[in-house]
Amino acid sequence: MVELQASAVSTIVDLARQLRVDSIRATTEAGSGHPTSAMSAADLMAVLMVKYLKYDFEKPQHANNDRLIFSKGHAAPLLYAMYRAAGCIKEEEMLSLRRFGSRLEGHPVPQVIPWVDVATGSLGQGLAMGVGMAIAAKYLDKLSYKTWILLGDSEMAEGSVWEAMASASHYCLDNLIAILDMNRLGQRGETALGWNSAIYAQRARAFGFHVIEINGHDLDQIDFAFHEAVGVLGQPTLIIAKTEKGHGLALTANQDGWHGKPLNKEQASEAIEFLGGVSNLTINVVRPAEPQKPVISSEMTGSGKFAMPAYTGGVATREAYGDALRALGTAFNDVVVLDAEVSNSTYAEKFSKAFLDRFFEMYIAEQLMVGVGLGLSTRGKKVFCSTFAAFFARAYDFIRMAAVSRGTIKLCGSHAGCSIGPDGPSQMALEDIAMMRAVHGSTVLYPADAMSCARLVEKMYELEGVSYLRTTREKTRLLYKDDETFEIGGSKVLRSEKDDLLTLIGAGITLHECLKAHDQLKEQGINVRVIDLYSVKPVDVETLHTAARETGTLVVVEDHFPEGGLGDAVLDAFAVKGPPARGAKMVAVESLPKVVKMAVRNMPGSGEPHELMDHACISATNIVTTVKSLVG
Amino acid sequence: MVELQASAVSTIVDLARQLRVDSIRATTEAGSGHPTSAMSAADLMAVLMVKYLKYDFEKPQHANNDRLIFSKGHAAPLLYAMYRAAGCIKEEEMLSLRRFGSRLEGHPVPQVIPWVDVATGSLGQGLAMGVGMAIAAKYLDKLSYKTWILLGDSEMAEGSVWEAMASASHYCLDNLIAILDMNRLGQRGETALGWNSAIYAQRARAFGFHVIEINGHDLDQIDFAFHEAVGVLGQPTLIIAKTEKGHGLALTANQDGWHGKPLNKEQASEAIEFLGGVSNLTINVVRPAEPQKPVISSEMTGSGKFAMPAYTGGVATREAYGDALRALGTAFNDVVVLDAEVSNSTYAEKFSKAFLDRFFEMYIAEQLMVGVGLGLSTRGKKVFCSTFAAFFARAYDFIRMAAVSRGTIKLCGSHAGCSIGPDGPSQMALEDIAMMRAVHGSTVLYPADAMSCARLVEKMYELEGVSYLRTTREKTRLLYKDDETFEIGGSKVLRSEKDDLLTLIGAGITLHECLKAHDQLKEQGINVRVIDLYSVKPVDVETLHTAARETGTLVVVEDHFPEGGLGDAVLDAFAVKGPPARGAKMVAVESLPKVVKMAVRNMPGSGEPHELMDHACISATNIVTTVKSLVG
Repeated sequence: MVELQASAVSTIVDLARQLRVDSIRATTEAGSGHPTSAMSAADLMAVLMVKYLKYDFEKPQHANNDRLIFSKGHAAPLLYAMYRAAGCIKEEEMLSLRRFGSRLEGHPVPQVIPWVDVATGSLGQGLAMGVGMAIAAKYLDKLSYKTWILLGDSEMAEGSVWEAMASASHYCLDNLIAILDMNRLGQRGETALGWNSAIYAQRARAFGFHVIEINGHDLDQIDFAFHEAVGVLGQPTLIIAKTEKGHGLALTANQDGWHGKPLNKEQASEAIEFLGGVSNLTINVVRPAEPQKPVISSEMTGSGKFAMPAYTGGVATREAYGDALRALGTAFNDVVVLDAEVSNSTYAEKFSKAFLDRFFEMYIAEQLMVGVGLGLSTRGKKVFCSTFAAFFARAYDFIRMAAVSRGTIKLCGSHAGCSIGPDGPSQMALEDIAMMRAVHGSTVLYPADAMSCARLVEKMYELEGVSYLRTTREKTRLLYKDDETFEIGGSKVLRSEKDDLLTLIGAGITLHECLKAHDQLKEQGINVRVIDLYSVKPVDVETLHTAARETGTLVVVEDHFPEGGLGDAVLDAFAVKGPPARGAKMVAVESLPKVVKMAVRNMPGSGEPHELMDHACISATNIVTTVKSLVG
Repeated sequence: MVELQASAVSTIVDLARQLRVDSIRATTEAGSGHPTSAMSAADLMAVLMVKYLKYDFEKPQHANNDRLIFSKGHAAPLLYAMYRAAGCIKEEEMLSLRRFGSRLEGHPVPQVIPWVDVATGSLGQGLAMGVGMAIAAKYLDKLSYKTWILLGDSEMAEGSVWEAMASASHYCLDNLIAILDMNRLGQRGETALGWNSAIYAQRARAFGFHVIEINGHDLDQIDFAFHEAVGVLGQPTLIIAKTEKGHGLALTANQDGWHGKPLNKEQASEAIEFLGGVSNLTINVVRPAEPQKPVISSEMTGSGKFAMPAYTGGVATREAYGDALRALGTAFNDVVVLDAEVSNSTYAEKFSKAFLDRFFEMYIAEQLMVGVGLGLSTRGKKVFCSTFAAFFARAYDFIRMAAVSRGTIKLCGSHAGCSIGPDGPSQMALEDIAMMRAVHGSTVLYPADAMSCARLVEKMYELEGVSYLRTTREKTRLLYKDDETFEIGGSKVLRSEKDDLLTLIGAGITLHECLKAHDQLKEQGINVRVIDLYSVKPVDVETLHTAARETGTLVVVEDHFPEGGLGDAVLDAFAVKGPPARGAKMVAVESLPKVVKMAVRNMPGSGEPHELMDHACISATNIVTTVKSLVG
């Protein structure tokens, strides 16, 4: 048992009071927010801040700072109150909570706030991200920092939490400490398990955690638990803290109906007085040790050279992805790869076999993969994640939140479209481009051959934000030489004559159908332009406008459902963004084309790729029919 | 201990052999597929079929048929071999596996095959759907059927499985029996837990299951386990069966490198001979008891009348959703509602308070909610599921698979767009329309006032497929009287003059901004048309074409990111679908109209709704500026 010294106890008690008071003040001032969800965890965070957290608030980029993730992001007022107590924000800013233009949004957001690593607010995500940070510390950077994660009890219903629990124990993350603020009350009443600490404990132990059950308002017990947790070896720890939502005030403590509700001014005023009034306690949070080793360990060195194998004949873009990953891994020592137990299909195994120490198996848990990837990315790694493109749908909320995090993560989805053949529609990504295009600030790439795929993977290494590469299961023939360059936002005009009657636009597997159709049409005296639209977002507006002006009609062919894919990306190139920049006139599009969309309009079944593409009306035969009908 | 009679033993042994032989035959004939994943579970399914399954294969719609879900959908060859053994498909059809046009796709698909309830193939989904079916039997229809779910061990890494485990025990589903085919090998090697039955058992017990651990190739143990499982009261059962992938053949048994790989012809021929050759055993599967009670219990009666409250003043569409649910619940007794622990925000609580017996709390587990909803839907319920629109991203793979299932499910996402205000971007759905439009056969609705919302919810009751209603957090003023009708695929022209200079198109909250802009512009002598595009998919092509023809320019305003939303839906109305119907000419393609897209282009923060809409450039002020720039 670690006994708290009298002076420390007094500081902690004062801090806990101040954190509660400040959580109330900020939310009452804002007129919205979650004071009671903050109050339940105030004692836990007070002990953490005074005795255990190692963090240099003046240097949020310090490599060895502990990480602190509020997975229950709605407890943001508590986090912001901690920042004030750490001396890094002023009272005035704290009271700007949730106001337009304030850094202190309703839920914490990184970059906007320098001490936050990942955006939270969609529940059940923080633990996965913490696993990524803890993996970085333990296996890659060999740093001593701890990753602390504050969990809410409602979010324990999210399966993603259990994916992360399993992974944390699989990777023996004894540098990860999760704190469950078991305050019993969810948004609309009691949680499924209420205060049943024993069941949470049983579940967490079964998932490989060291578990400590405490009263989350007893400072001694909290101190004891943290002390024990930091000493645990070989497994992660979950501290289950029985707490009261709204603890500290009779008005709110363990009362239903207080979720996401600020106290009114009168209530707040009484509460603050009862809690001892406004105070200005500042805590000197312990600074972390300087790293003993270089952050990038010396065993991992990069050559800086990106060398691809020489391809001949047909090569699947998914295989080129694997080759490119290996080439990147050789060139740069900060490339880290994750895969959801299908690395022999996505070809991520080409990397894992070469760089086992920088590959982490996520098993079949796509949410986990994206969360861990984002966590690793916050620690400076260039993270590529792969699975079947269809199964990224599983991680869509994590991908959406990665954009809210202003995070960088590189995703590769293989087995896109009906052209995968006999496996059937459950394995066919036919919505993935729509999903990925809609992610804020995303880049969406869809190469048609191995060389362009390799070059785009090379580009992805440098890209910021969420980037997505769609690869094809089937082998496709080489279209480009290895000195060809591929810009993000570019395209390639592969066939063009002065008398082109229209333009065929494809990407990935449909580009090859466009090229076949081009040849068949040419034999019949019909010239058409062909564009490889490998960069679906951003899209090459200029080349599309030129094609519209010169050929009048654009026929877009895609192995994707008709909504949100290639066709919509092309159409969007002809829409004007409103409103105009201040004082400017709207720029008009000079030549509006006719657009024909060829896409997968019925649910495919099983069959050979060519049968399914024919049936979906996206094969060369269908393109020829369409073109002849248009020009005939 | 239940001892198997000699005759039953002999039948089971013969059946298990036949199931293995047929799984090999079909996959070798197909040249792809998963024989070894089928072989590991053949003994389990043989005992089930001969002694426990109650199913009338001639009447797949029989209300009291047991349900059998292959959550490990890639074991489809085993399922199809069972169909042959049940006498409902012929050998020839069985050997058409994975061929174009065959009902027997690579993974099982309902409606295509009458004995399948839900499509599987995206792992980790079957248990949630089974929970829905078991809830229907236990709580709604009071039927005696059991729900059997065959789980793979790889899929136990998916968090969705644990969401479903927690829910199955929460609802005391003693009519649900899950069988874990623990064959140790995943796609690319060993699973995280291998044959560690004890850990699976510990986890499942912690999640409230009765657990039975057996050797999955010992017929006595299997029989004992099923016998025990059907008698368990008050909790669901998990049978953990230790098996070998590819069991029965030295070539494949417990061998790595055999995932998703058929035997070649020579290997198959030897294997079939070794296993005793081709056989034609037919099993008379026990038929279920006729239901003792009516399927719809008499306590639940519907009036058939849909009565909404009389609204005055501003009402949030989310509140109208709640009122409409309650009205539907009064009118029809097959309406069932699920919510992910936010029913006081989505207003689903208006239903739950009125019809507690038809409301099921899914806690914060959106994948579970959609899976359970689909399961209930297969049992004839009209299921509405609600949460914050942003959090449906969590369930996107389940929604995608619901479409593969040809399933019907009604989703309502509240708190759409930046107009929710101070909570910040984690809670703002800005990708949901893109995501939902891309779902095959989906309907996407976005009402602007309480009356249209109510009418659309009423329409949703009858809709087949995946339908999605987007509701708004903020109150909006009433635009329609209660006798107005709203067709799916329709729109409303709210303002129109002969000299309209352009058309403003909005839906939901932006429609109100369009109307405000209209009034401001009219004062300045500028007439514009205003369209309420409440049906985003299908979209009202005719009205849009008329507006384009008559006013030339369409300005689309949406509280959504620019990709895949309202703007793209409008543009798509002007793209022609290729190729033409057989023998027909393409409909004359017109050039695109001028389209201006006003959408959320930067990541919002916190603030008041009007501040955020202004900043996102989707408010009336921005619309006026845009229009004046266009017409000035």
